[in-house]
Amino acid sequence: MLECACIHKVQYYETDQMGVVHHSNYFRWFEEARTELLEKAGLGYHEMEALGIVVPVLSIACDFKSSAKYGQTVAIIPTVEAYTGLRLEVSYQVVDAKTGDLRAAGRSKHAFLDSAFRPSPLPKTHPEVDALMRRLLVKS
Amino acid sequence: MLECACIHKVQYYETDQMGVVHHSNYFRWFEEARTELLEKAGLGYHEMEALGIVVPVLSIACDFKSSAKYGQTVAIIPTVEAYTGLRLEVSYQVVDAKTGDLRAAGRSKHAFLDSAFRPSPLPKTHPEVDALMRRLLVKS
Amino acid sequence: MLECACIHKVQYYETDQMGVVHHSNYFRWFEEARTELLEKAGLGYHEMEALGIVVPVLSIACDFKSSAKYGQTVAIIPTVEAYTGLRLEVSYQVVDAKTGDLRAAGRSKHAFLDSAFRPSPLPKTHPEVDALMRRLLVKS
Amino acid sequence: MLECACIHKVQYYETDQMGVVHHSNYFRWFEEARTELLEKAGLGYHEMEALGIVVPVLSIACDFKSSAKYGQTVAIIPTVEAYTGLRLEVSYQVVDAKTGDLRAAGRSKHAFLDSAFRPSPLPKTHPEVDALMRRLLVKS
Repeated sequence: MLECACIHKVQYYETDQMGVVHHSNYFRWFEEARTELLEKAGLGYHEMEALGIVVPVLSIACDFKSSAKYGQTVAIIPTVEAYTGLRLEVSYQVVDAKTGDLRAAGRSKHAFLDSAFRPSPLPKTHPEVDALMRRLLVKS
Repeated sequence: MLECACIHKVQYYETDQMGVVHHSNYFRWFEEARTELLEKAGLGYHEMEALGIVVPVLSIACDFKSSAKYGQTVAIIPTVEAYTGLRLEVSYQVVDAKTGDLRAAGRSKHAFLDSAFRPSPLPKTHPEVDALMRRLLVKS
Repeated sequence: MLECACIHKVQYYETDQMGVVHHSNYFRWFEEARTELLEKAGLGYHEMEALGIVVPVLSIACDFKSSAKYGQTVAIIPTVEAYTGLRLEVSYQVVDAKTGDLRAAGRSKHAFLDSAFRPSPLPKTHPEVDALMRRLLVKS
Repeated sequence: MLECACIHKVQYYETDQMGVVHHSNYFRWFEEARTELLEKAGLGYHEMEALGIVVPVLSIACDFKSSAKYGQTVAIIPTVEAYTGLRLEVSYQVVDAKTGDLRAAGRSKHAFLDSAFRPSPLPKTHPEVDALMRRLLVKS
């Protein structure tokens, strides 16, 4: 699972005047980890889009536990929690890469759509992508 | 309640290559509406920080119902759902400003801290800010 | 010219831990003002894209004179400096909306392309858009 | 010099509806490369801030040559062009990490200030930081 961790160095432009990372960036880090997970599984999200699959966010949430700061590096660990062929659910842990301190924990739900934003049941429309998603689910 | 709506014109830099507003921006819009609500109540968030109060986000979530697009304007309607003197909870509705179509609904939880990030119970530390928050809760 | 000023309230998410607006946001503000200028002239940028015209940035620059801060509002004043039918040049002044203090001054160059990113000489391809751009140039 | 290249994978949230990276992100990438250059030289920018040195951007500019896209990785190569003890000038080349294609070229100017935003002549106030900056200038 740790192999799926996405390493992200906190950037100055991600901080706000509270002196910590602005909370909206955690959702960008989730995306970074989610797309890297797909890529490591063998199918980059840009390749999914090229196949005519779009995977918008239906809902997303995050609990903030401690503040990530500039000068630190975080690891974002994504886990595929559910996959139905039409829907995907992923959870995330953001930890300090050095200390392991938990920064945040979150979860996102997604739909698989075609390029006209209609539901695209992967087992029928893209069996090879379906197989890849099932493998990701089992491994998590 | 509609008086509290924050009007936001979708900007090009808020879109992504899916052709819609990137989901992370909704959390920025929530902040825009939340801080405008405080300001209209008589105390801008920059004035709260000047008083030594910081109000970080403890948790935040959003359900996405339909896509906001470039060329559209949204109204973000914040409602104070709970206030305890130490904690604050706000919900948000994002609707298209013209059609009223629901784009997203969300919720955030916050703590009141002092500038050293220690809990700051407003009834004791800042009774005038506490009174303002109570009025906001009742009005919602 | 002042009618073209775009009013922008500084947002918390635009600040960084230096306690001022992060410089990258000024380029977003330029875009806000540039697209609002087009819209006020009668053609929103989303309508230009719908006509098959894209107007990417070829170069952009900004001199920072003083720091915009959270709690302040800025006015961004765009001026069309040059228009050739194929190229556009716009300058920007960012001033504090209350005091008039100059925050920044910038300039951007753009090309008119078709949706396949090939040059689109507006006098030939879209004479009505060409006429609008010429009027904007004269007014500035 | 290539050792100083900062490798950045294009993120989905950095794209806009033109299907390419939004131009404002290049200035964030410059910052990423500039701060990594300092860090590799032995002094992270967060350590400079801890010493009471802030280094705001006085001016910045970028020429865009070709579009970086999602699914690509870029290398940002910073070069210290000038250093006077009070001022710093850095240039940047953004190239595709695989093909070497030039995406953009830019330049930024900075001042060294103390935490009250007054000029801080490094040779007097922080000779060890001054020495490090001089080494960076020579190496470039």
